[in-house]
Amino acid sequence: MDALKLLVDEVRLTPILISDPPLLNVQGVHQPYTPRLVVEVITRGGVSGLGETYGDGVYLDLARPLADALPGHSVTDVNALFALAASTDPALTVVAEGVDAGGLRGVRTADKLRLSVVSAFETACLDALGKTLGLPVHALLGGKVRDTVEYSAYLFHRWAAHPGAGPTDDWGAALDPAGIVAQARRFDRLHGFRSFKLKGGVFEPEREIAAIRALAEAFPGRPLRLDPNGAWSVETSLAVARELKDVLEYLEDPTSGTAAMAEVAARTDVPLATNMCVTTFEEVPEAFAKEAVRIVLCDHHYWGGLHRTRELAALCRTYGVGLSMHSNTHLGISLAAMTQVAATLPGLHHACDTHYPWQTEDVVTTRPVFRAGRLTVSDAPGLGVELDRPALAALHRRWLDDDGTLRDRDDTAAMHAADPGWSPRTW
Amino acid sequence: MDALKLLVDEVRLTPILISDPPLLNVQGVHQPYTPRLVVEVITRGGVSGLGETYGDGVYLDLARPLADALPGHSVTDVNALFALAASTDPALTVVAEGVDAGGLRGVRTADKLRLSVVSAFETACLDALGKTLGLPVHALLGGKVRDTVEYSAYLFHRWAAHPGAGPTDDWGAALDPAGIVAQARRFDRLHGFRSFKLKGGVFEPEREIAAIRALAEAFPGRPLRLDPNGAWSVETSLAVARELKDVLEYLEDPTSGTAAMAEVAARTDVPLATNMCVTTFEEVPEAFAKEAVRIVLCDHHYWGGLHRTRELAALCRTYGVGLSMHSNTHLGISLAAMTQVAATLPGLHHACDTHYPWQTEDVVTTRPVFRAGRLTVSDAPGLGVELDRPALAALHRRWLDDDGTLRDRDDTAAMHAADPGWSPRTW
Ligand SMILES: [Mg+2]
Ligand SMILES: [Mg+2]
Repeated sequence: MDALKLLVDEVRLTPILISDPPLLNVQGVHQPYTPRLVVEVITRGGVSGLGETYGDGVYLDLARPLADALPGHSVTDVNALFALAASTDPALTVVAEGVDAGGLRGVRTADKLRLSVVSAFETACLDALGKTLGLPVHALLGGKVRDTVEYSAYLFHRWAAHPGAGPTDDWGAALDPAGIVAQARRFDRLHGFRSFKLKGGVFEPEREIAAIRALAEAFPGRPLRLDPNGAWSVETSLAVARELKDVLEYLEDPTSGTAAMAEVAARTDVPLATNMCVTTFEEVPEAFAKEAVRIVLCDHHYWGGLHRTRELAALCRTYGVGLSMHSNTHLGISLAAMTQVAATLPGLHHACDTHYPWQTEDVVTTRPVFRAGRLTVSDAPGLGVELDRPALAALHRRWLDDDGTLRDRDDTAAMHAADPGWSPRTW
Repeated sequence: MDALKLLVDEVRLTPILISDPPLLNVQGVHQPYTPRLVVEVITRGGVSGLGETYGDGVYLDLARPLADALPGHSVTDVNALFALAASTDPALTVVAEGVDAGGLRGVRTADKLRLSVVSAFETACLDALGKTLGLPVHALLGGKVRDTVEYSAYLFHRWAAHPGAGPTDDWGAALDPAGIVAQARRFDRLHGFRSFKLKGGVFEPEREIAAIRALAEAFPGRPLRLDPNGAWSVETSLAVARELKDVLEYLEDPTSGTAAMAEVAARTDVPLATNMCVTTFEEVPEAFAKEAVRIVLCDHHYWGGLHRTRELAALCRTYGVGLSMHSNTHLGISLAAMTQVAATLPGLHHACDTHYPWQTEDVVTTRPVFRAGRLTVSDAPGLGVELDRPALAALHRRWLDDDGTLRDRDDTAAMHAADPGWSPRTW
């Protein structure tokens, strides 16, 4: 190996807008197009590595100086990315303070933004390294411990179409238990998913309880999850837990904040899971000490990459906390990265979340195929995906053409297109 | 990369006896020769990877079936070694129960033995992988974050010579403060170490306090550590801490067990460190919850290899616990592994321990050179060391020729050669 070949020669950042269906959540509705950022790290050996992360302006502002600083560094040196990102980030605190807290990921902090940016650079470096060496990314993480990774169906209350212009599909509306069951049946038929997760916090809890009950009836014995993104009070969370305790695999972020989650956890036997109150290493000790959650949903975008995801898994193993995997809207690069790291985690005993089946566009040349809800772990070099450059160019063109209204994802603003007076609800 | 080239073709286990000076500790005295195990993993590509661990019979009993099972596995698949070791280990519990608890490593358990064996196999696989790819081991762990690793001088009360036959050296006896200072001066001159650690628990605490005081006077402002291997009561520990609070970098395992350590920690400002009450992941939560230690000494032999050492570092970072590195008697293979992993740990803010300067024999062709107490991190493929086969053969011959008395290290038995009525003391 000529070490010079592993030095980064160039970093390309391509912000894109990808079509997204009108999926409902506590914050509103998915925009018709949502921003993502594709990171390409090209080595002096001419190998291109791929990463993908959030594409909102605050992330781009952090990615650009890091992209400028990376050339000359080796793609093997991913541990050093954190310090490099911090050193290239003079204005971060200001940027972060001006940003709405979001809600789907707890409080947004400068560190969280930076970790999400680093995650895409780390993934791209590992992809380039793997491609150069002829080894899959999982082999760069100590090797896979399973040959397939299980995913769950991600069910959403949704409209048939966006209120204004936007992409269309033939899924139709799902606004009641029957609609959710129909959606689940289609996911089951298309991809064979065994587990079902319903995004909650959209309607009053009774309607969402009824949807889970209907799923339990339609799919007896199958793992079911409900995730209202912290929209409920402690008492409401406990009432839902009581109603669904015989059918839930876990209840995900029923309420907001570690203290409230701990209060719920102390008063129910239903396992609580989170991707909101434990999203950084700093948040771990308090949550574990208070026994606020029994399952943490890892997410390499949140935690700073694939190595850090493995460290989170070690933390969970050490503290007897279960491990699952979170998803936000993403494309095939991230799906490949999720699958590669998931394959290396012995303690991953829950099916991973993925929005991917909702995405009809992609920047990779080949869509992965779920069989019995599982993806086969690629043993091809790197992440095992190739960039579809015409597709990337088209999605970037959409980003360029946007007048700025869609470049920062805002589900509440998207909801206002249908209902100007709407605001997030809690129960 | 032809993946077939990375498959293990053969594993060679070579138990050896290496000469060791008469260093004193709470358990007795180092034997004139001490067992180590050299693990060689040879790939189908013809590359040999090296690992080193404890060589006592209980470790050999675990290493042999693992060595038999490894051929056909890829050297990339180090995550899978733990399950493989467990599956090839039918008699482990019986073996472990028959073994003396030891004392220098807390209670000896089946898991601890297995992790120490796995560590050598993991290191050997990573060395073989690195050599095959032309990459240093640190690059397989995410890359180094420093170019040199600092070590501390490991000072021992010692005799001039072993009571019976054995290797000799010109260090002379060190049985009082003046002897310890003279030893420190020689280490300082030879290797430039900045930090000094004194192995305690040998004499009454007053004499060891006096030795540390003498070191503080001889080397003002230099980091000093004292490690009596848990030989003191809580009250004695507190008394020593009071006496030395102005000069100690940390006090290492003054007393035995997490509960007693926590009691000491609560009543002194001197940071406590351990390689006895936190030696496995299972022991972490209680110790961290009780704030029993402020520094954990990592050791890839204890924790199951280089990847697991990085996971321990992540745990410490998450919980705000400092990180240092432990050493037992070892050769150049382990020193290379320690240096490679240490180079990747951002939170390693204390000089690492090493017995290595006491070792006059080695199985690697080139002895590393400490400059200003530091080793340069090798960027050569793998661990950056080569096996000295004639030396290995000679040390193995010594093991073969031994009548069994030295094949299991027993410092108390070694002490009985000088003083048949001796037994470990506590204060
Ligand atoms: Mg969630
Ligand atoms: Mg110690």
